[in-house]
Amino acid sequence: MPVDHSLNTEFPGPVNPGYHLKKENLKSVSEYANGILTGNRAMLAKAITLIESSKKEFHELGNAILEKCYSNTGNSIRIGITGVPGVGKSTFIEKFGMHLIDRGKKVAVLAIDPSSSLTKGSILGDKTRMQTLAAHENAFIRPTPAMGMLGGVAGKTREVILLCEAAGFDTIFVETVGVGQSEISVKNMVDFFLLLMLAGAGDELQGIKRGIMETADMIIIHKSDGQNIENAGLARHNYQQALSLFPPHPSGWKTPVQTASSIDNNGINEAWETITTYYDTVNKSGFFQKNRNQQLVNWLHDAIENELKTRFYNLPNIRKKLARFEREVLAGKLNPARAATELIKLSQ
Amino acid sequence: MPVDHSLNTEFPGPVNPGYHLKKENLKSVSEYANGILTGNRAMLAKAITLIESSKKEFHELGNAILEKCYSNTGNSIRIGITGVPGVGKSTFIEKFGMHLIDRGKKVAVLAIDPSSSLTKGSILGDKTRMQTLAAHENAFIRPTPAMGMLGGVAGKTREVILLCEAAGFDTIFVETVGVGQSEISVKNMVDFFLLLMLAGAGDELQGIKRGIMETADMIIIHKSDGQNIENAGLARHNYQQALSLFPPHPSGWKTPVQTASSIDNNGINEAWETITTYYDTVNKSGFFQKNRNQQLVNWLHDAIENELKTRFYNLPNIRKKLARFEREVLAGKLNPARAATELIKLSQ
Repeated sequence: MPVDHSLNTEFPGPVNPGYHLKKENLKSVSEYANGILTGNRAMLAKAITLIESSKKEFHELGNAILEKCYSNTGNSIRIGITGVPGVGKSTFIEKFGMHLIDRGKKVAVLAIDPSSSLTKGSILGDKTRMQTLAAHENAFIRPTPAMGMLGGVAGKTREVILLCEAAGFDTIFVETVGVGQSEISVKNMVDFFLLLMLAGAGDELQGIKRGIMETADMIIIHKSDGQNIENAGLARHNYQQALSLFPPHPSGWKTPVQTASSIDNNGINEAWETITTYYDTVNKSGFFQKNRNQQLVNWLHDAIENELKTRFYNLPNIRKKLARFEREVLAGKLNPARAATELIKLSQ
Repeated sequence: MPVDHSLNTEFPGPVNPGYHLKKENLKSVSEYANGILTGNRAMLAKAITLIESSKKEFHELGNAILEKCYSNTGNSIRIGITGVPGVGKSTFIEKFGMHLIDRGKKVAVLAIDPSSSLTKGSILGDKTRMQTLAAHENAFIRPTPAMGMLGGVAGKTREVILLCEAAGFDTIFVETVGVGQSEISVKNMVDFFLLLMLAGAGDELQGIKRGIMETADMIIIHKSDGQNIENAGLARHNYQQALSLFPPHPSGWKTPVQTASSIDNNGINEAWETITTYYDTVNKSGFFQKNRNQQLVNWLHDAIENELKTRFYNLPNIRKKLARFEREVLAGKLNPARAATELIKLSQ
């Protein structure tokens, strides 16, 4: 069954009010949950739309579905992939995903789209992306809108990961463009963080946020094909040298730098071998579970804090006066701590 | 006038209730403010104790003093310094600070102490640290306790920076141990971020948090003296090479790697030259002001969010039930989003 691309039109902006949902068409929590647990992708897609909806009745239904499926979640490798536009994330994920599907895996790709808005359209709006993967019955591709400051950069991505796991997807890619803040959020919800780069240390780095390279679990120099092979090899060597000077992973893992070509199909299997080696290593050492536990606790506190912020910043009085306080702070008329105290008072 | 080290005993724990403050000894806002504005360091020290106090009447008095002085703040270079224990931060700051004082500067050193607690004592508890600097009338040295999650890692450090500026200190060092989260907070409140390292890329990196090296504005390979000079030079070369592969500073600044010895007094003036070059460059480009403005807005929102969190986590009902919810989340019985919703409900 091919992916229903028309679902993309359900994401007209950073907050999806669930435009295409109609109350009279909704099914029961059990129907959705059973659909998901038997691998029905249409049900999965609809549940995601529900959980991402900004309408209370819809996202509460979505949450109830997640709860029903919750004991069937967790059984996947969660892989974050980032890199600047042009590095070839889609072609890489397509090749990598097909490679895994050929080995019996079920692959979900969630693309966090920081640029999605009513006017700009989605990172996945281009229907030519990942055509082969998108058409395969063991793949599920889905954009997930960034929610802006209030909902957290990653919106409901964590919930969506869990729903995909409940539907039987055992390898989850969370794709993000490495230019904003979303990659930090993604790092906090995946088991493995992969950075794609190009050979040559020039302009292509301008877009990467500082601090990202040090946090990657693997760096792949992509587009290592044709005349680019030599440069890619050199870049691989240089980055490997550079990383050896940088702080080690908390688990003791040493970030490898590898090359790959999605055109020549080179380095694809090697990338997977690295991920499985990582998985085996951190599983054995206990770091895998420790990291997942920490992520659960972080999620709880993030969710609390996002809710507190959302409530605060949406108060009519705060919406009306925040901008003026910001201006006075910037004009040096008011110190930020005092401005915060005043605003908190106005919220009560 | 030497620094009154006995002030350190006013910081018995992460939240300073102002033990040594007595209500009947307090002066008026104007007296404190005038004292600070005329460079009276005893008044400055007392105002800092007030603003850091967890007792409402004390910290409100502190805030009022800051407000009175606020138009006299901002006129300093704020320099963050981090590095693992043993890298020689104190000896470096002492030499560097004296170098600047010899050139007519007034130097304040604020040490954020993540380990301060009733039992562990303070990073500055050892009175032998920075003895020469501490004894100089143009220096002011002060520990500033990390406040833990609720008050934000850096507690009231931003306020303390401003009070020091009002007292005429034109070069402010904010020292932190590069092992926790405080260096990220510090990065967000300074103009320039300096990382001290040692030659050799081995164990001494274990303590540095990943992502820190990429965010430094200058790296100094410290203890470049005696038999260590050659190694330090080599390390300098290697790190400079490595950094050239990493993303550039948003301002376009290229992070230099330099060597220094606080024993031989080598590289101290060169470090200052780099900082003044940076200052001139970002001043001309407008990045300096842009960065300070962004920090003001961030401070406002951090202050709001810290207050919202503090209120929430201190509610009796939440204090009683949070741990149980965390346990259920970790046991897989409850998903974090639902746990957050339930806790928010309990808070109302």
